[in-house]
Amino acid sequence: EFNLPKRYQTPPAQLLPAKNGEEPTMQFLLEVVEILTSYIRKTFDRSTKVLDFHHPHQLLEGIEGFNLELSDQPESLEQILVDCRDTLKYGVRTGHPRFFNQLSTGLDIVGLVHLALQVSLLLVWFRFTYEIAPVFVLMEQLTLKKMREIVGWPDGEGDGIFSPGGAISNMYSVMIARYKFFPEVKTKGMAAAPRLVLFTSEHSHYSIKKASAALGFGTENLILLNTDERGRVIPADLEAKVIEAKRKGYVPLFVTATAGTTVYGAFDPINEIADICEKYNMWLHVDGAWGGGLLMSRKHRHKLNGVERANSVTWNPHKMMGVPLQCSAILVRERGLLQGCNSMCAGYLFQPDKQYDVTYDTGDKAIQCGRHVDIFKFWLMWKAKGTVGFEQHIDKCLDLSAYLYNKIKNREGFEMPQHTNVCFWYIPPSLRSLPDGEERRQRLHKVAPKIKAMMMESGTTMVGYQPQGDKVNFFRMVISNPAATRSDIDFLVEEIERLGHDL
Amino acid sequence: EFNLPKRYQTPPAQLLPAKNGEEPTMQFLLEVVEILTSYIRKTFDRSTKVLDFHHPHQLLEGIEGFNLELSDQPESLEQILVDCRDTLKYGVRTGHPRFFNQLSTGLDIVGLVHLALQVSLLLVWFRFTYEIAPVFVLMEQLTLKKMREIVGWPDGEGDGIFSPGGAISNMYSVMIARYKFFPEVKTKGMAAAPRLVLFTSEHSHYSIKKASAALGFGTENLILLNTDERGRVIPADLEAKVIEAKRKGYVPLFVTATAGTTVYGAFDPINEIADICEKYNMWLHVDGAWGGGLLMSRKHRHKLNGVERANSVTWNPHKMMGVPLQCSAILVRERGLLQGCNSMCAGYLFQPDKQYDVTYDTGDKAIQCGRHVDIFKFWLMWKAKGTVGFEQHIDKCLDLSAYLYNKIKNREGFEMPQHTNVCFWYIPPSLRSLPDGEERRQRLHKVAPKIKAMMMESGTTMVGYQPQGDKVNFFRMVISNPAATRSDIDFLVEEIERLGHDL
Repeated sequence: EFNLPKRYQTPPAQLLPAKNGEEPTMQFLLEVVEILTSYIRKTFDRSTKVLDFHHPHQLLEGIEGFNLELSDQPESLEQILVDCRDTLKYGVRTGHPRFFNQLSTGLDIVGLVHLALQVSLLLVWFRFTYEIAPVFVLMEQLTLKKMREIVGWPDGEGDGIFSPGGAISNMYSVMIARYKFFPEVKTKGMAAAPRLVLFTSEHSHYSIKKASAALGFGTENLILLNTDERGRVIPADLEAKVIEAKRKGYVPLFVTATAGTTVYGAFDPINEIADICEKYNMWLHVDGAWGGGLLMSRKHRHKLNGVERANSVTWNPHKMMGVPLQCSAILVRERGLLQGCNSMCAGYLFQPDKQYDVTYDTGDKAIQCGRHVDIFKFWLMWKAKGTVGFEQHIDKCLDLSAYLYNKIKNREGFEMPQHTNVCFWYIPPSLRSLPDGEERRQRLHKVAPKIKAMMMESGTTMVGYQPQGDKVNFFRMVISNPAATRSDIDFLVEEIERLGHDL
Repeated sequence: EFNLPKRYQTPPAQLLPAKNGEEPTMQFLLEVVEILTSYIRKTFDRSTKVLDFHHPHQLLEGIEGFNLELSDQPESLEQILVDCRDTLKYGVRTGHPRFFNQLSTGLDIVGLVHLALQVSLLLVWFRFTYEIAPVFVLMEQLTLKKMREIVGWPDGEGDGIFSPGGAISNMYSVMIARYKFFPEVKTKGMAAAPRLVLFTSEHSHYSIKKASAALGFGTENLILLNTDERGRVIPADLEAKVIEAKRKGYVPLFVTATAGTTVYGAFDPINEIADICEKYNMWLHVDGAWGGGLLMSRKHRHKLNGVERANSVTWNPHKMMGVPLQCSAILVRERGLLQGCNSMCAGYLFQPDKQYDVTYDTGDKAIQCGRHVDIFKFWLMWKAKGTVGFEQHIDKCLDLSAYLYNKIKNREGFEMPQHTNVCFWYIPPSLRSLPDGEERRQRLHKVAPKIKAMMMESGTTMVGYQPQGDKVNFFRMVISNPAATRSDIDFLVEEIERLGHDL
């Protein structure tokens, strides 16, 4: 580590804000950069821990002098640097090659560059008018068009916006569908519409349910669709439930096809669902928050066949494509709906008498007012990698999944169902001879949580687990970290065996 | 500028992602830091332009080789650095001391440090469980409690969450109010409730209207309240409209008191509104997105007297407190509502069988799934400035506003109504002798847009304008930039006179 010069004993309040841009503050910033680069080097070093686990009460009590409490008086810059180092020390290194815990992991240096530049752009407030954010407005426009071309809409026609995450993107899709079929709800409320029902997979992301509650449909009017043994929606079940809803006098409005479910990574059959949507005049939304990245791969995009028939698509580059959070797009095939649905024509924000072409002001399409700039990092990564670079990244992640699948397929002590995300149980030797039945289920249910707890305490690797339906807790392996290699997969499997052997 | 070594002619796709953490990529990152620090130095240099204005078509055509289009093949790192510099070059320097355009401006070096560290934390995905984000979950908890103490709720009791901006925070408040009074709407939809009406100032932020559309109330059920000559809600008008709504058989549910309206900076009389809310059993929400920062100032917090009687409060540290976007909190007085309203109990996300105290997992309170980490920068700034530092910042901004007000109060060619935000017309000499009337109004309406266009083209300063009600376009001066001084105020006034003199 480095020694802090005496000048850092000055409280920052005396340097700031008046002296921004002067030498002491710039030097301070450079010291932070030093902390940062040293941290990044360590992140890629497999001999460092993924995390240094402590319980909440330990952190709250102020472990090793790390004091989370806020105070009336300013701290010295020296102390701020110490706080920064402590924050990094007790955080989880989500970019570590052995962190497999979430749908998005890893660290892309070009994404980093964005974040660093964001610093310098002082992106304090973006209403997303061309006036304030000329370059970003255009980057967003070009990138969304490119994404729509990749979805397969002719000439990339349509509309879209970046939102703060897939849950909000999915919420947009429900709002827009309602506006398309019942525009009067905007002014008169849900009372102006008949009883509307929505359909989604029993394995779909919970954000569809959150949207149905928030937007005033009610979760009981979200009808869950049955899935086959691989977790894909059964189209006949959709049609039966649509007919049943109509028989009751309800109006079927909206269907989500999930392209990459959260747990199994299942891809619903979009073409067959689209046929039913056309037949019954329903909005088709494809939730590709997780799986949308596959559209970049010529080898794997067939899993989303039919996506070009969707009315709207959620696609999160911050998941499989490795863009730093947050970066989620909602794409809409019909132009004008997004604006019509959300525009409130606030004269104080969107003055029509500006000197430039105000059709570039995109703010009134959003449910937000100011928006965080999520586009720049994505645009910059696309520049740096090219479309082919994203393709290689996707292909590599799927290759590693296949490697893991093949590795544990016939390995003693592992069991798994057939899914795109590699999901598996580790069966400790003590359970292997037990017959199928309630006792085995109950004991197996406790294995993954125990292994995970040991993993977190030893800090060697991280992988998620969850139950699903009638299946007891199982591990779900998600590979989107560009730094992961086969040796990290080997490590994970052996670590699970080591930790779980005596359970 | 600096010369790029030969190694940057390597396409980044060849360096990335496999070689993250190795020397060439680390060197690349350091070069970006060099761009960044040089940019920051310039930002605080008043001799640089606030912006270098170009029309959309000019940027799209690729001015001076700046190519926004995405391509299949990767670019070289050298080109990526050029792209970064171009992005900065054509962006607006919102941290410039003479940028007064929005409710939030300026650059705080400690906020910067956060962004820099965010880089190193690789904050790619936050579901906001303690598992993934132990330090941030605790920082959020402690900071929200501190904010609730400052609002004045006993012992800082209550609940809250950071959201992606004030519009979403306001949307939360409406959802929570509905859940409190009509919890069955969550499952059964708006059909389960009577006709609900909401009330807000005619000058309130348009996000309340967006929320009423999105959540299924309908904008017609949002009733606008009349304001006095200073833009504050007239309590008697609220009571009359509540009585009228009840007479029609509607159910008055929710009232927003705005603490700092967007244009005039007016503060609604919270205590008188709270009396009416108590009398008629309605939810009181205080939208302090803009004015909440005044709570930090002993001298100015009286403008929010009565805020402790609110059921919920929106407070955006990213506005007057100078925290980099995005940083918006929704605070709720009654604990449990936020969770009850939004929780969907997704077993695959929030496993109850973890080894730590899972009440620290805050994710299921949010309408989002993953959340961007907005807390760290705020926490770090609070550490660095202390509560007293924020107070000084607020006091300084309000002093500068008073300085501007006094400067133009009796100055020839300026007129203004009485508001907290300094709003004013510049009257060019050619209009000064015109009598009040339609011709003067129409000509005056065009003055601010013309001066603004000239400002943007010369790039010397930026200030917003808008019409409001029957008032033609006027300038609105917003001071939240910590780097602004009286000389910048002087400059602005003289620049308006210079640009507008011959109109």
